Amino acid sequence: MHRMAALPPASVLTQLSANKVFGGYQKIFSHESSVLGCTMKFGVYFPPQYEDKPLPVIFWLSGLTCSEANFIEKSGAQRYAAEHGVILVNPDTSPRNLNIDGDSKDWDFGVGAGFYVNATQEPWKTNYQMFNYVNYELHSTVADNFQVTGAQSIMGHSMGGHGALVCALKLPGLYKAVSAFAPISNPINCPWGQKAFSGYLGPMETGNWEEWDASKLVKKYNGPPLPIFVDQGTGDKFYKEGQLLPENLVVACKDGANLINLVLEMRDSYDHSYYYISSFIGDHIKRHATILNAK
Amino acid sequence: MHRMAALPPASVLTQLSANKVFGGYQKIFSHESSVLGCTMKFGVYFPPQYEDKPLPVIFWLSGLTCSEANFIEKSGAQRYAAEHGVILVNPDTSPRNLNIDGDSKDWDFGVGAGFYVNATQEPWKTNYQMFNYVNYELHSTVADNFQVTGAQSIMGHSMGGHGALVCALKLPGLYKAVSAFAPISNPINCPWGQKAFSGYLGPMETGNWEEWDASKLVKKYNGPPLPIFVDQGTGDKFYKEGQLLPENLVVACKDGANLINLVLEMRDSYDHSYYYISSFIGDHIKRHATILNAK
Repeated sequence: MHRMAALPPASVLTQLSANKVFGGYQKIFSHESSVLGCTMKFGVYFPPQYEDKPLPVIFWLSGLTCSEANFIEKSGAQRYAAEHGVILVNPDTSPRNLNIDGDSKDWDFGVGAGFYVNATQEPWKTNYQMFNYVNYELHSTVADNFQVTGAQSIMGHSMGGHGALVCALKLPGLYKAVSAFAPISNPINCPWGQKAFSGYLGPMETGNWEEWDASKLVKKYNGPPLPIFVDQGTGDKFYKEGQLLPENLVVACKDGANLINLVLEMRDSYDHSYYYISSFIGDHIKRHATILNAK
Repeated sequence: MHRMAALPPASVLTQLSANKVFGGYQKIFSHESSVLGCTMKFGVYFPPQYEDKPLPVIFWLSGLTCSEANFIEKSGAQRYAAEHGVILVNPDTSPRNLNIDGDSKDWDFGVGAGFYVNATQEPWKTNYQMFNYVNYELHSTVADNFQVTGAQSIMGHSMGGHGALVCALKLPGLYKAVSAFAPISNPINCPWGQKAFSGYLGPMETGNWEEWDASKLVKKYNGPPLPIFVDQGTGDKFYKEGQLLPENLVVACKDGANLINLVLEMRDSYDHSYYYISSFIGDHIKRHATILNAK
């Protein structure tokens, strides 16, 4: 398990914005992250039910190049969160404003591309600890600042779909449900993953890449039975280019992941965009809410 | 009436993008506008029903600073258009890339701020003919390129809410329904409208401003009975600052607009953003579709 020695303290939050939407409030907060060593922003949607009682939380992890804004502005998720009475929390995709040499050269590495791993290599390892940030610091910050039930789940898109799968698989029991839109399902076998893991974790031979690959992690998963819902558009150019490889995850589950119940849903002609996400985020939130709200 | 001497010819369209969303396709086209003298972009959402039959059209006019992208990416309207089987068409908010002296100095005048009027003043009158563009050239382009029933309506936000009201009031019978989110309802009495009308139309004394003000136009409307649905958030800072003045439109209708049935719906604590629009666009599209789909 990847438990941190001690949970980082919950941060003091600064509210940057609040917009009423579907009867609740979409807010953006910033805080000083001790895990990442920089100021981070994240979104929280509080549905109208939040006025009356603590609620479960769904975490959303975004994909390459995204900040906290894309999901908030384009997914339309607030409508469904309001319908089902769940809080949505979505962090940024990497540390920001550190000016580490090389962090902004490529759109698929560094800023906007933290890949939700804990980097072990210089110059990244001091700050690029997105796995610890998401699963520990952000969690404790949410739990200490908001009224939550403790029931939580995770979902994400593309790089964030990879992140959601890896978080759920590496921390059994922490998330009651996991789903992913067009996830990078087998990063050690695709160009995006190989580039990111080489940089953050070092060469394949010595970098323990398999510890951060959903198609490897499912095979040794031994936590509570875990349903995984994976969604993939057939018109997605990154799928066609072999960056996503959801079929490898399916095969891996068949090969020996007895505790995993994987469903891969193919969506005819949908692409990789937020238009696609917006079309099915309601389906995902409904699935999560059913599990999160179960007594 | 503001009929053009001859309808401008429908333009040849270039499809810039197509994304599947809610079973249909969100597309963006560009064309050479002879009315505006520049290349223009507009969005069209084709719901899944479009595969089988011609459909009615709802035109959407956006507000200050917007391009064709904001509504497409942030309103969530596609879901409701798919539900009700209507096409959505949304043009840009001004001519673009003309580099007219002064057209990009202010965010509330010139580029992104055409105000849906036909300018009479130099240097704007050659190109800033947004009323003619929306109601004639865009209409003929839509009618000639897509399978439409001929039933159409119009809605908009802020400056585009003003635009929707003025289009419906100046061209009786052209639109079967009109609604507006936080419209500039009485532009001759607010700073935004006074600035824009001064620039595009000349001084109040000689510029025929009342011909472009919904609160004036309702009083002399004599077309078919026209229901107007106006939506306003009570937390909208521009409302509080007196830029929108929907109450003036209510008073004007009571004063002597027998053919107008105005409903003003106040939305508690909602602001001026697309979060607000996304919360109620479903209500608006349902109202329009009921009228557009009536036999």
